[in-house]
Order: sequence, then C-alpha cells, then structure tokens
Amino acid sequence: MDLARHEEYVSPFTARYVSPEMSRLFSPQFKVSTFRKLWTALAQAERKLGLAITDQQIEELKQHIDHIDFAVIHSYEQRFRHDVMAHIHAYADLCPTAKPIIHLGATSSYVTDNSDLIQLKAALTLLLHKQVQAIRHLASFAKTFAEAPCLAYTHFQPAQPTTIGKRACLWLQDLLLDAKELERAINTLPFLGAKGATGTQASFLALLDNDSLKVKELETLIAAQFGFTKVIPIASQTYTRKIDLQILNLLESFGASIHKMATDIRLLAHEGEITESFDDEQVGSSAMPYKRNPIYAERICGLARFVMSLAQNGAYTTATQWLERSLDDSSNRRLTIPEAFLGTDAILNTLLHLLTHLHVDRNKALSHLEAQIPHLAMEPLLMAAAKRGEDRQAVHETLRRLSGKPIDQIVKELNLDPKQFHPQALTGLASKQVHDYLDTEVDSFLKIYAHIGDSYTHVAI
Amino acid sequence: MDLARHEEYVSPFTARYVSPEMSRLFSPQFKVSTFRKLWTALAQAERKLGLAITDQQIEELKQHIDHIDFAVIHSYEQRFRHDVMAHIHAYADLCPTAKPIIHLGATSSYVTDNSDLIQLKAALTLLLHKQVQAIRHLASFAKTFAEAPCLAYTHFQPAQPTTIGKRACLWLQDLLLDAKELERAINTLPFLGAKGATGTQASFLALLDNDSLKVKELETLIAAQFGFTKVIPIASQTYTRKIDLQILNLLESFGASIHKMATDIRLLAHEGEITESFDDEQVGSSAMPYKRNPIYAERICGLARFVMSLAQNGAYTTATQWLERSLDDSSNRRLTIPEAFLGTDAILNTLLHLLTHLHVDRNKALSHLEAQIPHLAMEPLLMAAAKRGEDRQAVHETLRRLSGKPIDQIVKELNLDPKQFHPQALTGLASKQVHDYLDTEVDSFLKIYAHIGDSYTHVAI
Amino acid sequence: MDLARHEEYVSPFTARYVSPEMSRLFSPQFKVSTFRKLWTALAQAERKLGLAITDQQIEELKQHIDHIDFAVIHSYEQRFRHDVMAHIHAYADLCPTAKPIIHLGATSSYVTDNSDLIQLKAALTLLLHKQVQAIRHLASFAKTFAEAPCLAYTHFQPAQPTTIGKRACLWLQDLLLDAKELERAINTLPFLGAKGATGTQASFLALLDNDSLKVKELETLIAAQFGFTKVIPIASQTYTRKIDLQILNLLESFGASIHKMATDIRLLAHEGEITESFDDEQVGSSAMPYKRNPIYAERICGLARFVMSLAQNGAYTTATQWLERSLDDSSNRRLTIPEAFLGTDAILNTLLHLLTHLHVDRNKALSHLEAQIPHLAMEPLLMAAAKRGEDRQAVHETLRRLSGKPIDQIVKELNLDPKQFHPQALTGLASKQVHDYLDTEVDSFLKIYAHIGDSYTHVAI
Amino acid sequence: MDLARHEEYVSPFTARYVSPEMSRLFSPQFKVSTFRKLWTALAQAERKLGLAITDQQIEELKQHIDHIDFAVIHSYEQRFRHDVMAHIHAYADLCPTAKPIIHLGATSSYVTDNSDLIQLKAALTLLLHKQVQAIRHLASFAKTFAEAPCLAYTHFQPAQPTTIGKRACLWLQDLLLDAKELERAINTLPFLGAKGATGTQASFLALLDNDSLKVKELETLIAAQFGFTKVIPIASQTYTRKIDLQILNLLESFGASIHKMATDIRLLAHEGEITESFDDEQVGSSAMPYKRNPIYAERICGLARFVMSLAQNGAYTTATQWLERSLDDSSNRRLTIPEAFLGTDAILNTLLHLLTHLHVDRNKALSHLEAQIPHLAMEPLLMAAAKRGEDRQAVHETLRRLSGKPIDQIVKELNLDPKQFHPQALTGLASKQVHDYLDTEVDSFLKIYAHIGDSYTHVAI
Repeated sequence: MDLARHEEYVSPFTARYVSPEMSRLFSPQFKVSTFRKLWTALAQAERKLGLAITDQQIEELKQHIDHIDFAVIHSYEQRFRHDVMAHIHAYADLCPTAKPIIHLGATSSYVTDNSDLIQLKAALTLLLHKQVQAIRHLASFAKTFAEAPCLAYTHFQPAQPTTIGKRACLWLQDLLLDAKELERAINTLPFLGAKGATGTQASFLALLDNDSLKVKELETLIAAQFGFTKVIPIASQTYTRKIDLQILNLLESFGASIHKMATDIRLLAHEGEITESFDDEQVGSSAMPYKRNPIYAERICGLARFVMSLAQNGAYTTATQWLERSLDDSSNRRLTIPEAFLGTDAILNTLLHLLTHLHVDRNKALSHLEAQIPHLAMEPLLMAAAKRGEDRQAVHETLRRLSGKPIDQIVKELNLDPKQFHPQALTGLASKQVHDYLDTEVDSFLKIYAHIGDSYTHVAI
Repeated sequence: MDLARHEEYVSPFTARYVSPEMSRLFSPQFKVSTFRKLWTALAQAERKLGLAITDQQIEELKQHIDHIDFAVIHSYEQRFRHDVMAHIHAYADLCPTAKPIIHLGATSSYVTDNSDLIQLKAALTLLLHKQVQAIRHLASFAKTFAEAPCLAYTHFQPAQPTTIGKRACLWLQDLLLDAKELERAINTLPFLGAKGATGTQASFLALLDNDSLKVKELETLIAAQFGFTKVIPIASQTYTRKIDLQILNLLESFGASIHKMATDIRLLAHEGEITESFDDEQVGSSAMPYKRNPIYAERICGLARFVMSLAQNGAYTTATQWLERSLDDSSNRRLTIPEAFLGTDAILNTLLHLLTHLHVDRNKALSHLEAQIPHLAMEPLLMAAAKRGEDRQAVHETLRRLSGKPIDQIVKELNLDPKQFHPQALTGLASKQVHDYLDTEVDSFLKIYAHIGDSYTHVAI
Repeated sequence: MDLARHEEYVSPFTARYVSPEMSRLFSPQFKVSTFRKLWTALAQAERKLGLAITDQQIEELKQHIDHIDFAVIHSYEQRFRHDVMAHIHAYADLCPTAKPIIHLGATSSYVTDNSDLIQLKAALTLLLHKQVQAIRHLASFAKTFAEAPCLAYTHFQPAQPTTIGKRACLWLQDLLLDAKELERAINTLPFLGAKGATGTQASFLALLDNDSLKVKELETLIAAQFGFTKVIPIASQTYTRKIDLQILNLLESFGASIHKMATDIRLLAHEGEITESFDDEQVGSSAMPYKRNPIYAERICGLARFVMSLAQNGAYTTATQWLERSLDDSSNRRLTIPEAFLGTDAILNTLLHLLTHLHVDRNKALSHLEAQIPHLAMEPLLMAAAKRGEDRQAVHETLRRLSGKPIDQIVKELNLDPKQFHPQALTGLASKQVHDYLDTEVDSFLKIYAHIGDSYTHVAI
Repeated sequence: MDLARHEEYVSPFTARYVSPEMSRLFSPQFKVSTFRKLWTALAQAERKLGLAITDQQIEELKQHIDHIDFAVIHSYEQRFRHDVMAHIHAYADLCPTAKPIIHLGATSSYVTDNSDLIQLKAALTLLLHKQVQAIRHLASFAKTFAEAPCLAYTHFQPAQPTTIGKRACLWLQDLLLDAKELERAINTLPFLGAKGATGTQASFLALLDNDSLKVKELETLIAAQFGFTKVIPIASQTYTRKIDLQILNLLESFGASIHKMATDIRLLAHEGEITESFDDEQVGSSAMPYKRNPIYAERICGLARFVMSLAQNGAYTTATQWLERSLDDSSNRRLTIPEAFLGTDAILNTLLHLLTHLHVDRNKALSHLEAQIPHLAMEPLLMAAAKRGEDRQAVHETLRRLSGKPIDQIVKELNLDPKQFHPQALTGLASKQVHDYLDTEVDSFLKIYAHIGDSYTHVAI
C-alpha cells in the first residue's frame, strides 16, 4: 500500500489483497512493454518476409521496450483521445529511425488484443500454479484425516458418519475440476495474429505482395514469439469476446467452488471441529476480544461472490457486440478482466494462508459423532433388516417409531447383531474413496506440477 | 398448447416456443419412468452381485416402468411430503412381489441425481444436434456469400470492405465453439452411481458383504445400462453442483453468441441487407401493416437474455450448498435446469426457422459499400504510401485532411496507382478465410454429424 | 396439477408451488379478457368523445369479454404470426357489429402494455396482502418471544445475549421494508393510456378532431375504468421498461430478505432452537427416516435465488431497448415477469406455512446461552472496568488472557460486582426494542391492512 | 493518474474515469477522518449524558481528526489483523489523555457502519447533483428540438414520424425517475447509531445507568451531528444489508437507463442524425483516421454494464448474512460499494461531456423522414378510412397490398384528403408532450436544484 496516496480511492486489491506478481501482470508497465514487444515482433516478421525494414530499426525498437515515460504517453492521449495512437507516438519519439515502420499494416487491436491474450495466458498460468499449491495442501489434509470419523450433515442436520478426509475430497474434487479447466483454457487460448481493421487482413495482404501465404507466415512468426501455437482463424477487428466470457466463467466457477468450501469451514468452525489459527496479538473483535472468528473463510466468501458477479459482464459484452466490433466492450473489459483475476488471486492468497493455518479437533469431531450414534445407525439397521428379507416400508415405519431411542434397544428389538453398529464400522468406503481418489486423479495431476513448489505465499492482512 | 387450460398460468415454453422432443425430456413421464428404470437396474445389478432378488421381481419391475398413475403418486406425496417416497410406494403398489427390494440400499439421490444426469445428457445431445443443423445452414450461407462484398462496420460506422460470408463466419465460429463445448460436456458427464445417503456407500458396502470391489462393480453395471462410462469418484449425497453450473454456463455462453448474431441481423435488417421472409398473410403490425420487422431475430435476443440470466443460479446454488448437501438446491434446480434447456431449445427452433428464411440483398450490400469507397480506401492508401517509405504519421495527417474527398483526388494527390483501389481489391483475404475455415474446421465437424439430417423443424408461432 | 398432461414439461410453479389466485392472474383467460375490457373501454371513451360508435356496439363488446375460444385465437395467430391481430379477429368474429371499431386508433401496445400494467398492479397487490399476513405472524412471534433470552451469533460464533424476539425483528424489519416498497410501487404504477404506434398519439389526435384535450380525456377515462389515477406522460410504443426493472428489483430484494431469514432458520434448526413441525406421516428421508429437516426454509432459499436471478432480465432488457421500441423485450418479458411473480407467490405460500408451523425450544435456547456465559459477559466486564476509568486496552488484554475461565474467577480478578453478570441482565435493550418497534412501525402498518385476515393459505407439497 | 506507480495494477477509475470529488469520498483519508469524527461525537454525547469524560479529552480528539499517519495504522493492522483496533490504537497514540475513552461502549460497526452510511449519503448526493446537471442539459436539448421532425423506429425499422425532442424526453423521463429515486434514498437513509456488538445496546445501557432514554438520546445526538434525522430502530451488529442492496439497485437502474440512451445515440450516430463532436487533433482510429466514432456513448454502455453487474452483490450478500452478522460481507462491500459509485460517477462524467458535445443534423433527420413518407402515412390513412366507417381489417388489407407505392396514389385510391398527409401533420402530439412534460414535471424538479450550477465538469480521457 502506497501510504502517500490517501486522498483518492485506492483499490482494496492493491491496498490489501493481491500479490505483487498478479498486480504486475495488470500494471501499466506490463501493458506498454507488451505493446512494444508486439510492435518489435511485427517489424521483425515483416522484415523477414521482405519488407524494407532495417536491422537498425529493429535494434532501436528492442532497446526501448522497457523505457517507458508514462507522462509523455498521458499527454499524447489527452491530445489524440486515442490510447494506441498515444503509445505509437511515444514509442516513435524514442525510435526516430524506426518511426515510419512502427505499427506498419496494423490496427490498434493488433497490440491491444494480442497483449490481452498474452496477459490472460500469463494470469491464468499464475492462478493455476496457486491452485496447484492449494490442491497439494488439501490433498495432504485429506490424506491425514482420511480415516478420522466425523458426522456428515445433510440439511445441516446429523445424517451419517463420514470421515474428515472424505469431506475434504468434496472440496478437492471441485478444485481439481477448476484447475483442469484452467489448464485447458491456457492450452487452447489462441493468438489474434495480424488481422487488420476489420479482420480481412487487407492491409497486410497489400504490404506482402498479395501473397496470402506470407500473411499466414507473418502471423505464425509473431505468435511463436509469444508462445502461442494457435492463431485464431476468424476474427473481426478483435478476437471473439466469447473467449473472455469463457475465462470469466471459469473464474466464476472457481469462485463457486471456493465459496462452498469456505462456507463449510465456517459451519465447522461453529462446531469447533475446524478453526483458523490465531496469531499471538491477533484481536478477535474490538468489543469481544475472546472471539475466534473464521475471518479468512469469510473473506473468501465475500471475494468469491465479487468474482462470480463479474462473469455477467463477459456474457453481456459478448451478446451486445455489434458487427465487426463496437467499442462498448472497452471500458467494461478494462475493469472486468483485471478485477476478475485480481479477485481470484486474492482468494487464492487467502486460501493458501487458510490451508496452512487450519486446526482440526479430531476429538471434538468424534464426540459429535458418538452423540448421534443411535440415529446414525438407522441406515445400516434398515439395510440389515431389509437384507434379511423384511419389508422395507415396515422396517422404515418401525425405525421412525423408535426414533431417539438408544442404539442397544433398537438393535435388540430388530434382532440384529450389535457388532455391526460400531462407529468405526459405519463410515463405509469413506477412507478408501479418499485414497483411491488421491492415488488416481490427484497425484497424477500434482506430478505434472511438481516443479511448482510452495513458491507463492502472501500474508494477507 | 392445450386449449382447455386457460384459467391457470401456462408456461410460454409449452404454449409457444419449445419442441415436443425437448418438452418430453422434462416431462413427468420421462422422470418417473427413468426413476423406475434406475430401480430396475439397481435390482438387476444387486441380483448379479449375489443379493437375494428373484427373476420374477426383476420382471415385475420391468413390466411397470411405463405404467404410471400420477394421481396415486400425487396422493402419496401429499401424505409423506417426500417426493421419492411417494414414487417408491406407487411403484411398490404395482409390484407387490418386488416391493421389499425396491430402492434397496439406496437414498433418494440415487434416483433423483442419476436421472438428472441421464436427462442432462439426453437434453445436451438434443441441443447439440440442433446446433449441428444450424451450423450446417450457416456454413452453407457463408460459402454462398463468401465473395459477396459488403461494408464492415466498427462502432456501427463504415469501416472497411469485407464479405457477407466472412461476417457469417464470425457467427459460425462462435456457434462452433459452443457446439464443441457441448460435445465435450456430453462426453465427460459422469454418472453418480450408488453413493448412499452421504456418499460413503456404507449401505451398499453392508449389503455386499463388505466387499468394496462389489460396490464398484454395482456402480459400473448400472452406469453402463444408461450409457455412462464414467462414475464420479467423489460424491456427497449428490453429485457436485458444479456440474450443473458448468452446463448452465455453456448454455449462457451459447445465449451470448446467438444474441450477438441476432443483434447483427437486426442491424442488417435496418440496412435492408438481410431480411426475414414473410408469409403471405403475416401481419407486420396492427397499426403499421407495411412493416417487415426482424421478429425472429428479436425473439432470439429476448430468449437468449433469459437463458443467460439463469446461469447465475448454478453459481450461487453451488456456492451455498452446505456440507454433505442442503436441500436449498432442489426448488431452484427444478426451475432452472429445465428452463435453461427449454429456453435454449426455443432459441434453436427459432434460429433454424430464421436461417431458412433469411433473404440477402447482395445489390443493396454492394451499393452501401460503393457509397463509402472514398473512405474505405484509406487504409490501403495509408499502406501504399507507407510501403513507399513515407512517414506513417505524416500520411495519416494528410488523409485526415482529405477526409470526404473522392477517391480519385486522393489517389492522385498521393501519387498512387488507381488499380489497387477497386472495391473487389479491398476485401483482402475475406473470402479465402471463409473457404479455409469451412474446409478445415467446419467440414470435419459436420462430417461427424452427417447422420443428423434436417430432422428438427419447428414452426415457432 | 393436471394429472393428464405428463408427456410434456409442466412448470413446477403450477405443479407444485403457486396459489390458484396468482396462477389465474397470469392465465390466458385473464390476459384475453383484459384485452377485451381494454377494447371495450376504448370504444366507450371514444363514443363519449364523439366518435360514431353505437350503444349496440358497446353492448356487443361487453357481452363477449369472457367468451373466449382459444382455438380460434390460436388458429388466427398461426395465420398472421401476430398475437394481437389474432385477438382482434377472434373478438371481431364474436362482435360483427362492433368489428369496424375494435382497436380504433390503437396499436398493439394499447392492449398489451395496459393489460401488463393492470396485471402487475393486481399481482403486486396480491403479494402485498400475503406479505401483510406474514408480517402479522412474525410480529406476533416477535412479541411472544420478546423477552426469551438466546445467544446472538456473529461470524456464527457465540457473541452476546439477545432475545429470540429481537432476532425475529431483524427479519421483520426487512419484510416491512419490502412491503412498504410494494405499497409504493402499487400506488405509483401508471397507466400507459392511448399513445399510438410510437407514442405521439397521432392516430388518436386525428380521430379526435385534432383536439389534444380530447386525447388527454380519452386516456383519463380509460385509466379510471381500471383504477389508475396516473397516466404516464411520456411513452414510446410502450411504457418505459424501467418500470418492469423496478418491480423485478423489488421482488429480488424481497428474495434477498427471505433468503436471509430462511437461512437463519436453517442454522437455528441445526441448533435445535427452532424446528419445522412434521405431519404424522411425513417422511424425513428415504434412507434416514428419523431426520427432521428444515425443508420449507430450504425451499424458500432455492426459490428466492431463482427470483433474484430474474431481476437481471429487467435491467438488460431496459438497457438494450432500441429507440421507440424493439421487440426483443417480448419473449423475455413473457417469461420473466410471470415467473418472478409466481416465484414470489411460491415463496410466500411456503413462508405462511412455515410461520404457522415453527416450533421454538426456549429451554434449548437458554441452555446454549448459559453455556457461554463466561464468554458472553466479556463486554459488560470490559464496560464495567472501563467505566471505572481503567485503560481500555489493558483490560482488553487481561480479558484475552483469561479467555475461557469461569465467570466468577474473572469477575473476582477484575474486582467487579457479580450481580451485574446474570444472564437476564445481559440482553440490554433487546426486548424494549421489540416492543417499541412493534408499537410504532409495525402496528400502524398492520392496522391499514386489518381487513386482510388470514385469507391466504396454501398447503405447499 | 499517478505516473510513478506503473509496476502495479492501477484502477481505471482513478487512472481514467472518476472525478476527484468522488474519488475523495472513497479515499482512506475520508474513511479514517470519519471514524475519528464518530469517536469524537460519541465521546461528546457520552459526556453530555454524564459519563466521566473531560473537555480536554474531547479537544484532544478533535484536534487529531485529520492528522493521520497511515503507516502507523498499517503497522497496527498487520499486528492485530483487525482493521478497527488498528485505527483505535493509532488514534490513541495521538490522544494519550483521551485514550481510555476512545470507542467507549462501542463495537467496530459503530465506526464502520456509521461511516459507510455517511459516505453513502455524500456519494448519493454527489451523483444526484450530477444527474441534475445532465437532466438540465437534456431538458434544454428536448426543448430546442421539440418540433424537429424525425423518423421514429420500432424494431429499428421506420415506423412513424416523431420529433427529436420527443425522443429525448424518453431518455429524460428515465433519468428523472432515477434522480427522484436517488433523492428518496438520500432522504430516507438512516443512521446506525450506537447499537453494540449484536444490536442490543447492552454496553451503552450499562454505561448509561441502565437508562434506555439516555441510550436513545445518545444515538440522536450523534446522528444529528452527521445530518441524519432517522436512526434505524432495529439492527444486529450492523445495519441491514438491504440498504446496500437498495442503493446498488438504484445505481443498476440508472445504468440501464443510460445504457438505453447511449445505445440510441450510437444508432443515431450511424444514421448521421446525432454525432459526437471531435477535437481538432482527435484521432478516429489508428488505421482509419477518418472515422467519427461515438466513443463516449460506447464508453457509457461499457461502464453501465459494469455497474449493473455489481448489483448482484448487494442481493447475495444480504441473502447470505447469518444471524446477527457474518463477516463475509466485508471484503465484498469494500469492492462493490465504492466501485458502483465510482462507476456511476464515471458514467455521469462521460455523460456530461457527451451532452455538451452532441451535434444534431436536423436536415438529415428530416430527409430520412421524407424518404419514408409513403410508408409513414399508413397509420393516418388507416385512421381516416376507419373514421369514415370503413371496415378496419379491409382497409388494413388494402394498405398492405399498396405497400411501397407513392403517397399520392394511395391517398387517391382511398379517396382521402391529401392535406392531412403532410409530414408536419404527422407528428401528432409529440411537441406538445415535450412542452407539457418539461413544464410540469421537469421544471419543478430543476427548480429545487437551481443552486447546482454547471459545477461538475470532468474531461474524461
């Protein structure tokens, strides 16, 4: 937090929640330097394809990629009221020799949309890596507590025994689904390429001797420089805004997963089965200092709803684009896309903190379970009786009548074997499910990302 | 439309918009018969795995799958206030011998969630097949008009020449993206299997001699009967509601694509370049009979926004599920899931009608283009001058000064070759892009679905 | 539920949730008879203002208002593909004499939009009356438990003592806010009047001797017949869709209130402090018959989220209307407006059932409170010490150190008076707030609606 | 834009769109100084009601309201992980004498929620004042063009003649509706007052001799200091989040109005009837320098959709609050509330710029109208014939047959008077509606705010 800037709005993202690495991806520096890299790559590819561009011009462009004077840009923008024209002039000022060939054949979207895609790819990758860390923590948690019995709740009413690890796998499976979707999004994200003012590539075709193969090569050369293997085949002035929509929906979907998980943790904090650890000096409440509130889980919920709400923008912006492009996407995307990523980053930072500061009280979980044993045994009782051939509905009726009685009386009245009704015997395949799931689906995923250590940490305030 | 029921609300879906085939998938008959198929399949699998279930019981179950007395079910439901219990009793009444083994080891979600997944798969497949038809029509449209020049618009202001077919490919690419997402959703949709009251499979484990392999086989056997190869590994009482969310988001994304396309058509109807054909007796307006309004394109927009709005439900229902399940999903899913599919079906019915009733006025499109020629040539002029090595910014300034002058004067002032500035020469790679795109990405997709003829037609009123 | 129609989709609203009175307001019968009333009123007003319309024509129109043959309408609609033209022809068939003057000077929106406003007013009034009943029940509940101590929760962690009645007032205040908003909406809802095809009233001006006063009187006469005192001054073909948006937002806001209340009840059902009563034969769960799940509160949450999601439609439909009207509102409004009202009606039906079937366990609430007394006394301890002039931060620190110790030890260590720390003494002004609030704001509201007895009951299944 | 901070995310609001006055209302300085004012007011009121607080302590508090060291606060927050505790300590450091009585009896929400309400009121007022300016401009525009004929469009197809001023009144009426809603929100916004940790006021009751009248007076005294006349009667730890929801919905509703208006302007820019003026050096497009794009109208649409999407947060945050408060509102509100106001401010800044830079081409509007005259006369023809007693449906049919013929031929064939069919005669009451509406509803509103001159201007980049 820049402590000097207190007379104007400061986004809580930068003031509180986001990591420097994500913040940087949505910084002016990242944007402008990417614009310049794109202009340089364009010139290089055009040179390779025979246009009269010199080595010296390329060198000049390269040397000024990171040398950005934002005041100059700002002043050009006020004059032209055109973002990209301002950047062209500012770059040209630094590169007098290359000036005539900067942006050659291109339209604004060449730099804006390609740099958006580069940014999206980098930001998705960063999120994926943080998800990997979260999944690793949660997988370890699930393994540790795979056999630890606890009470499962349906309708937030005592239902059946399960294990703490099994419940963690409910969260884990959702997170893994999200991570794999992100993985796919990263792998399939296309490059816009060099499509011209309305997508016909007319300007590049004219520049490149009316040779369509050269136009195609131009695109491939540039895309490769930025790590993209696929160039989108059909574009208008811009890439289809469906791509934004799909990405925002993935972040929304992750938001929903994590809101559910954090809500569960808040409910379990009420039970005292899972709590967030407190720092020595941490204060629970100004009026109630004794409180141990699940504040990180609550923060995640609030952030998740914010991220979820943003997805709507992707849908309606796509829906209302007119013909070869309308600019009503611009101000919306400037806000929506960064904030969806910053919000998700904020969630993950908080989640990584939370996952490394969770305390599980196994005994409390067990005691809650034991208190419900007479109830919990109902299903096995029903099964055991049914297995002996008794009418299911009749047994059902009997059980309803005995509801609330001690387990011994019930077992006796139904002539069943008491050994079957130990707590441990009642968790079914819960622990086996955990181990199977970790061994098959989770470990193979984590192996791919073994190189992502615990690199991301962010002490959220 | 059932003309007798006019004293109560009738959903516009059934009264106006949806096809019988989609309506049937969300009918009570489909639901109840699927419940019964699931109970039959459960009994069959349990019998195969050694439980004391007779052939006669299985036969009895099979014979009463489609023999549904809804009044009986309704009366049981009022008594028990429990949907599935009512269905069990009604089925048991018809199957006195099988009565004790119906639903053996199962919880309600065994039938509700598995039948939801069966329904989702069938409904997604129906939508995909209709999308295939729409894509085929649109591909043919794009091919027909691949070379037809027209004006491209950015900011809904004249921008550059393009072709009608190229513009159609913008729509086509979005639709193909959607169709491929649906394809993937269909192929990856899992079966819930037999997970028990809180997902631990305890009841099935108890029934099946504590043999976890038998429990796994039980699930695989049942899933296979319904055409599912994957059983979800981790479940609570239900399958994770993220699956609903993902599907609703796909329908939302299709809604966005189609809203954009239909909006474009409405704008082009204003231009008179594309119009909806009218039946002989069709009335444009009660006060303005001469009107030729793009009513089907407008209807699509209205329906699309409805479908888009429903996606929110998937997100917040997932987000607010508590622990092993809370029932606050039920009333929401009963409304949201059918309506999202019915709405998308309604869109596709209208779209198929629209795509087969579009009139393109090539000449009008061309004349609009020619009127803008002096402006449209600006980019090639800029290119041509830049190619000769002139300073781009200086040419830019000159062009701005000459804005509005005839093309000849501009060409002359800049000492350029007039041949380059024919309309035909100005559409760049538009037509080539169309053919390349159809030949590579579209045709290979359509080939897979060649068996889906023009089977779906629905004259929307 | 019409048990014969099971091969097609049946809306859960009609099958399960809505009251006959709300269903009727959105029925075809209501719509068509309202159209005819509007045509009759138009003819009457035109006659009064001097047009050549006979008594006989008026009588003919009046006599056929409720005599609706939906098959005839349907067949005309398929022919003309125009809703209102079909209705005109069907009505004209019944009224051969009046035929030439039906719809005289009008455009479709004269009947569609005015009937929408009539319907909205009636439906809002029905909802308000049900809200009144709910508020009355809840006020009585709050009064009954005004003094009953219970534990207040922040972060769903024990916080401070409050009373059950005070908590109910949190819900009550939100509901009263909603009801007053509905009241205001009903009172300010305007009539569209007779505005013509694009809102200029040109056709009516021409009919009425170019006398603008007559046009104004025409509108006033018709509006009065339907109980409207205000005619909207400015309209395009339609009334501004902002009115829909505002109403949908009110229903959304009520959805949010009730989702919060129902969620609280679900949390308190977990505590066992509030439970839903069960019918004798009611079944908790097919596998767990002993369960006492808060299913009505859960249903309310699911329905509320649905209603909340619909609000989006009002916003984007308003936002995307073009110039004097575009028809992309039509298919959306046909779905959104009825469903928002049906959904809210369903919530209120369930709520009225819930409020009359709640059981409060005062003793359990008290015992939960007592178990937390040592913690709960923290704030008064802090106050008492601070009042004696001790440094607040120091006491804060001491209290944090003693966290978890018995109340006596703490009181002693801080040298305070033990009498102050009785449970009863710790609920502050909770009960007084309840009585004050009921006496001032609630009672005066309920008095206005004293005539609305407990008229609405609906046993939801 | 702070040109030095380019390595991290900079919100486009501060970098581009918002006014300094709105930015300041959501600045750290505003927040912290308001906290301190609230603590000072609390101490003053407590002193007046007899607590042992000295003049010197009050003075000390007053003197340090604006002397804020953000680094100190930040460091305390990292230590305590509690926002308000950090502020208390930082203030106490500056006020050693007052230290023991800062925050006396209060809980965090005393400062956070009351300051939120103060902020909301100030921000709503700022928006209202800007809306007043916009309404004044638009009213003047409507007056200027009240009689200027133009073509009305339904379905974006030529419909009927109207006037430019009448169309502007469609926008104006929506804006006035919004402004009056804001007015009402400002006037009814309550103060939270001093409610304590869970809303029972127990701590204040204990401090104030168990005298409930004193507690009431305490609240009234403080509220009055901040210009609030109403204190909310029922609160939990916080004020009901419905208030946020209602405000966010008002901003959403304004977003919808303005999106519709800006969309209309974009459509009319296409027609060339209304255009945005360009600065001398302004650049239309980097590749198409001649373009005159409606970029401000487009920007408004993009921003409006963003603001609209935020409303969802208010609904779901209200809906998911648990019991006496859960903190999952906090991170969401920190983002949502400021951004909704900043977004609306950005819209209004752009709108004020747009409204003062619109060019209307009366002649083009007229020529578009005249080209459609044969069509436009249809409704009066229908009327004139109907008035003579001819069968409406028969005339309707004739008109449909003659569709596209010159007006003279049609008039002749129907034996009508040609004078009636001049363009001027066809705009009905359009201009009269404009003047009536301005004279009655708009002027009376503007008079109230006559003191709000054209004070707000913001040259958006």
